[in-house]
Amino acid sequence: MTTPDDLLPVGLEDALPDRARTITTAMRAVLDAMDGHGYDRVRPPLVEFERSLAGRMDGVATRRMVRFTDPDSLRTLALRSDMTVQVGRIAATGMAAAPRPLRLCYAGDVAFLSADQLDPARQRLQLGAELIGADSVVAATEIVSVAIDALKAAGVATISVDFTLPDLVDTLAEDAMPLDAEQREAVRRELDTKDAGGLREAGGEAYLPLLYATGAFDEAIAKLAALDVGGVLASRIEGLRAVAEAIGARARVTLDPTERHGFEYQSWFGFTLYGEGARGALGRGGTYTIKGSDEAATGFSLYMDPLLDALAPMKTEEAQKLFLPLGHDRDAAARLRAIGWRTVAAVSNGDDAGALGCSHVLDGKEPKAL
Amino acid sequence: MTTPDDLLPVGLEDALPDRARTITTAMRAVLDAMDGHGYDRVRPPLVEFERSLAGRMDGVATRRMVRFTDPDSLRTLALRSDMTVQVGRIAATGMAAAPRPLRLCYAGDVAFLSADQLDPARQRLQLGAELIGADSVVAATEIVSVAIDALKAAGVATISVDFTLPDLVDTLAEDAMPLDAEQREAVRRELDTKDAGGLREAGGEAYLPLLYATGAFDEAIAKLAALDVGGVLASRIEGLRAVAEAIGARARVTLDPTERHGFEYQSWFGFTLYGEGARGALGRGGTYTIKGSDEAATGFSLYMDPLLDALAPMKTEEAQKLFLPLGHDRDAAARLRAIGWRTVAAVSNGDDAGALGCSHVLDGKEPKAL
Repeated sequence: MTTPDDLLPVGLEDALPDRARTITTAMRAVLDAMDGHGYDRVRPPLVEFERSLAGRMDGVATRRMVRFTDPDSLRTLALRSDMTVQVGRIAATGMAAAPRPLRLCYAGDVAFLSADQLDPARQRLQLGAELIGADSVVAATEIVSVAIDALKAAGVATISVDFTLPDLVDTLAEDAMPLDAEQREAVRRELDTKDAGGLREAGGEAYLPLLYATGAFDEAIAKLAALDVGGVLASRIEGLRAVAEAIGARARVTLDPTERHGFEYQSWFGFTLYGEGARGALGRGGTYTIKGSDEAATGFSLYMDPLLDALAPMKTEEAQKLFLPLGHDRDAAARLRAIGWRTVAAVSNGDDAGALGCSHVLDGKEPKAL
Repeated sequence: MTTPDDLLPVGLEDALPDRARTITTAMRAVLDAMDGHGYDRVRPPLVEFERSLAGRMDGVATRRMVRFTDPDSLRTLALRSDMTVQVGRIAATGMAAAPRPLRLCYAGDVAFLSADQLDPARQRLQLGAELIGADSVVAATEIVSVAIDALKAAGVATISVDFTLPDLVDTLAEDAMPLDAEQREAVRRELDTKDAGGLREAGGEAYLPLLYATGAFDEAIAKLAALDVGGVLASRIEGLRAVAEAIGARARVTLDPTERHGFEYQSWFGFTLYGEGARGALGRGGTYTIKGSDEAATGFSLYMDPLLDALAPMKTEEAQKLFLPLGHDRDAAARLRAIGWRTVAAVSNGDDAGALGCSHVLDGKEPKAL
């Protein structure tokens, strides 16, 4: 009876029971880890004024948002494509008077009108935490720690964190390795593609060594320090070292100081989270400034789909399912549910306990193995 | 720094920390109760083809849906306004081969383009369970029981369930109290408004006693049985009695046999859930047929906002918040988090433990009351 209407649009899908169970379990673990670090969950709405979603952060493109006219205000509404901007709005409005630093976390679906080249999904489950009122080394250390704790709580066994310095070129180009505005853009572009030849042609020969200050943190940061002749990066380098030291052995730390993709709105510090078994990044974070309120902040976002790839498959819980025959003892069933059994009650004599995934049947007041 | 862009559109709002915490706690309790009864959660997408959302159930109006053109297929997409239809689609497609009865549950946001007269909200958090493949008295009993268990688990102390017979007029008009098609519609309308005079004018004098077969279940069902001269309602009356008996003392049961509002797509059985302290209904359910696959089903939906009204205010958890000074012992903090403390780490010397809601401060390796 499947008709073309039953198919889902490209980039949208159902999570059926096994996957939905894994998502719920991982999401609760992540939220509980953030809660343990004092982050209070907020729940912004799915839809806002387009200008509100676009106005709180650079790099939020309205082009990919689902937009429509509000029949009430006749203004343009949009489906959220990033919850970070909503948390920034809450910090600047409803929680403007709350003491700083303000710790907020969130989990919810975001949606896009169209897929992008790298990711066909038009809906994602985004989870994250924002520390509002601080973008210091201590703030960065806390946010990276919370992100690692959240991933570990969800079940990601082996975590890597890749540090970057999003405003690196701007910092160097100011004085130490001068570039005019046009060169600056070209040098950034060539660093993004890690093209040594292009970098030379763009007048960025001095920036060449940056391409090699990448990899395992200790060696890469030493290379970066060696080429920081003017000392303009000294505080950043010291900051990265402090964050890496605090992480210790909980995650592998690497450095890619010129990485900009996904850090368009970050200031001095950015990081990408990876997990063994997942092809793409599990999440990203860093320091930034909330537009409009001009408040410093540090935060991270995780995305559920790559996170699931990094989890070991959950063991099925079928073993604990208890079949309740017609006319069963309801009090006994309630008591067994209270101690952790899942029950499946017969609705007719034809119900097949085995086909319904049950391992036990209620026999009088006690479970009996099938 | 608040601008008009920072305000939310009418009918949409943020849940700030206290409310968000209550929502998360109640939602987990409801989902865990449904899980205990063998209902597997599924997570359908926010957006589907409009025809898919409209085609699985009568009474789902596309007029109030947020609709837009899919740039990929050039077909009309819509933001879901009811998750029940999505579960019906999953049962008929992705889980068509799963053994019956199929138990599925869900929780997620639904949205509307415009508010309706009774409810200004344009977004709701809907939770529910569907028993697919059965619409018998046993199925109805199970669904009402699961709904009551879910509400009790969330913390609703005093629950009322109001039964109705959605196809009552159709059943009686067939033979026992004959009406032609036009009269039938008029009689339904007058029963909806409980207008005795209008009912007489519409030629529905025989239906007048139905208006009085309402209230506490035992008396009302006796009145209904007394006027069922032809015996066409006998199986329905017996069914309602069986469901009410199974509920026992867990909820107060009432009967309003002609209530139709919210039951446009239900077949023989419908029910509305109420809780002390909430003005409106907490949820609704009943038996129905999934359009397209023509499969019998029984289910219920809860809505979070009225549910929250029926909950006692949660006690704040501030008492357990532990301030971590700069340079604190990270291992001690991790150990305390693991046993249930929420921690709030200083990010500067200026951080005020009291203002940040902390009751204790980490002193060496142990919490000390502030």
